[in-house]
Amino acid sequence: MRAVVIRSPGGPEVLELRDLPDPEPPFGHVRVRVHLAGVNRADLLQRAGFYPAPPGVPADIPGLEYVGTVDAVGPGVTRYAGGERVYGIVAGGAYADRLVAHEREVVPAPANLSDADAAAVPEAFLTALDALVVRGRLVAGERVLVHAAGSGVGTAGVQIAHALGCFVIGTSRTADKLDRCRELGLDEGIVAPGGVFAAEVLARTGGAGVDVVLDLVGGAYVPETIAAAAKRARIVLVGLTAGASAQVPLGVILQKRLEVIGTVLRSRPIEEKIEAAKLLDRTLGPWLSRGIVRPVVDRVFPLAEAAEAHRYVASNVSFGKVLLDART
Amino acid sequence: MRAVVIRSPGGPEVLELRDLPDPEPPFGHVRVRVHLAGVNRADLLQRAGFYPAPPGVPADIPGLEYVGTVDAVGPGVTRYAGGERVYGIVAGGAYADRLVAHEREVVPAPANLSDADAAAVPEAFLTALDALVVRGRLVAGERVLVHAAGSGVGTAGVQIAHALGCFVIGTSRTADKLDRCRELGLDEGIVAPGGVFAAEVLARTGGAGVDVVLDLVGGAYVPETIAAAAKRARIVLVGLTAGASAQVPLGVILQKRLEVIGTVLRSRPIEEKIEAAKLLDRTLGPWLSRGIVRPVVDRVFPLAEAAEAHRYVASNVSFGKVLLDART
Repeated sequence: MRAVVIRSPGGPEVLELRDLPDPEPPFGHVRVRVHLAGVNRADLLQRAGFYPAPPGVPADIPGLEYVGTVDAVGPGVTRYAGGERVYGIVAGGAYADRLVAHEREVVPAPANLSDADAAAVPEAFLTALDALVVRGRLVAGERVLVHAAGSGVGTAGVQIAHALGCFVIGTSRTADKLDRCRELGLDEGIVAPGGVFAAEVLARTGGAGVDVVLDLVGGAYVPETIAAAAKRARIVLVGLTAGASAQVPLGVILQKRLEVIGTVLRSRPIEEKIEAAKLLDRTLGPWLSRGIVRPVVDRVFPLAEAAEAHRYVASNVSFGKVLLDART
Repeated sequence: MRAVVIRSPGGPEVLELRDLPDPEPPFGHVRVRVHLAGVNRADLLQRAGFYPAPPGVPADIPGLEYVGTVDAVGPGVTRYAGGERVYGIVAGGAYADRLVAHEREVVPAPANLSDADAAAVPEAFLTALDALVVRGRLVAGERVLVHAAGSGVGTAGVQIAHALGCFVIGTSRTADKLDRCRELGLDEGIVAPGGVFAAEVLARTGGAGVDVVLDLVGGAYVPETIAAAAKRARIVLVGLTAGASAQVPLGVILQKRLEVIGTVLRSRPIEEKIEAAKLLDRTLGPWLSRGIVRPVVDRVFPLAEAAEAHRYVASNVSFGKVLLDART
């Protein structure tokens, strides 16, 4: 197989396309011929040496999501025979034209989605759905705040909250991204280049604040988010691009009875990965088939240009997902 | 009625016993002839001016829990006729020999408990049960960490976790209190005068950490608590005696997928107060009747000596509950 390998921890230049032996699917697993893989910020952290792959996963091949076709099945596999178009999340190894996954972690891709659209779904939509609905217990009609609303997870979160009939506020560093989020269901956009937004959030919710927050930023955003939260709000921390530590007003957490919830998809055990696959199949699948939510693809790079794709994601100019095409 | 009034915000000396008109119970409410009331740290904060009573509650009479007898019923009351021995929580006003509460917030006191034992139950046991089980979702067999294990809420939390078959670790500033907690079901005690305990908690759980934390201390305990937490742990913040702010490692919250949950009983709306009364009646009532958990009374002061009781609570030497007797 062709795979992008991290030569040693470092900048984008350490990503190197190599020929490696094809993996054989063990018991219960299938091998997928990957068409496209998504690029995630976690991949950039892994490349730099800050986010090592969990045990049992290729340590030096990044890539957390894919679309492709089943091209071999291991012993004991009952769901796939070969040839099916599938997509899903993995804990690593998707920057390659072959990967191996447990058959219950693999989900049939909706027929109405192109390969590129399908590849833009798994990580972004599962992260947002899990954070908002599973961990954040979002219910219809609540007020939602999505930080980094123009990111892959952000654009998914805006759409999911909108699909549930929620009032959706987004933050971004640029007004342009918020304008594009309005087409996805964003009700109110706040340009927050300096990380100050609490007063605006309160003003746009009649002083009430927001019930659920999807926070991809962390750092100094956290105390602002706590100030912008309604009583009994759930603040779900999904990313920490602004910093992994913050001075937190515990008294406000008590008085408002807030929940600050940390979450991450990659390091989950197989039973939870399978639960995530069910969400992808049963909740997001019908929504995607009916057009209630839609993938947002920014740009597709050839697999051989993974380094360039990483530089592009790091530049923060993308809106939605950046993908790698393993067929080119 | 006789009531302890906060003359103006300040030290214990601002507490003053006064004669006031008896309150009349409005629609749906009963009047209770108070026998004893509990003293809580929240009362000390309220007296100092830092924790004002919520709307609809006597602003200047502290007191969050009581035992007594129903001595008058308002129109529309169906559950009580007068004369029943009851106990419960209120949002204020219990430092008096008469108080008014909604009939559904009032709970029959278990017959096997003395007045003093009954008065030691509501706030401590409801706070601990709500924090551990309702907010913290504690289940049988989990590992629990209770900070300030010798306090009223702490001694209740140790017993509730023990009753659920959990492995219970407690912290305290003094070894003596931990020794007494062992009789209540504490498995491991850690003397933590300087607020350093994470390494010990990990050592005593075979490196795994704890699943649920009942934190009455806050401040610099919070980063230590996060270090002592197992994956997917729930850290419930109930008190902040060590400080209302902390530098928090958000990255660990993500990686361990923790939940930091703030909670407070007093400011809840009536429907949640009634839910709390049901917990007192249906969960704690049978446990108390069968001796599965038992109140821990440290000392009873006459109502007129409320100032002395506050000084005593502030001194941190008490083990379990400090009460005021409104009949003396």
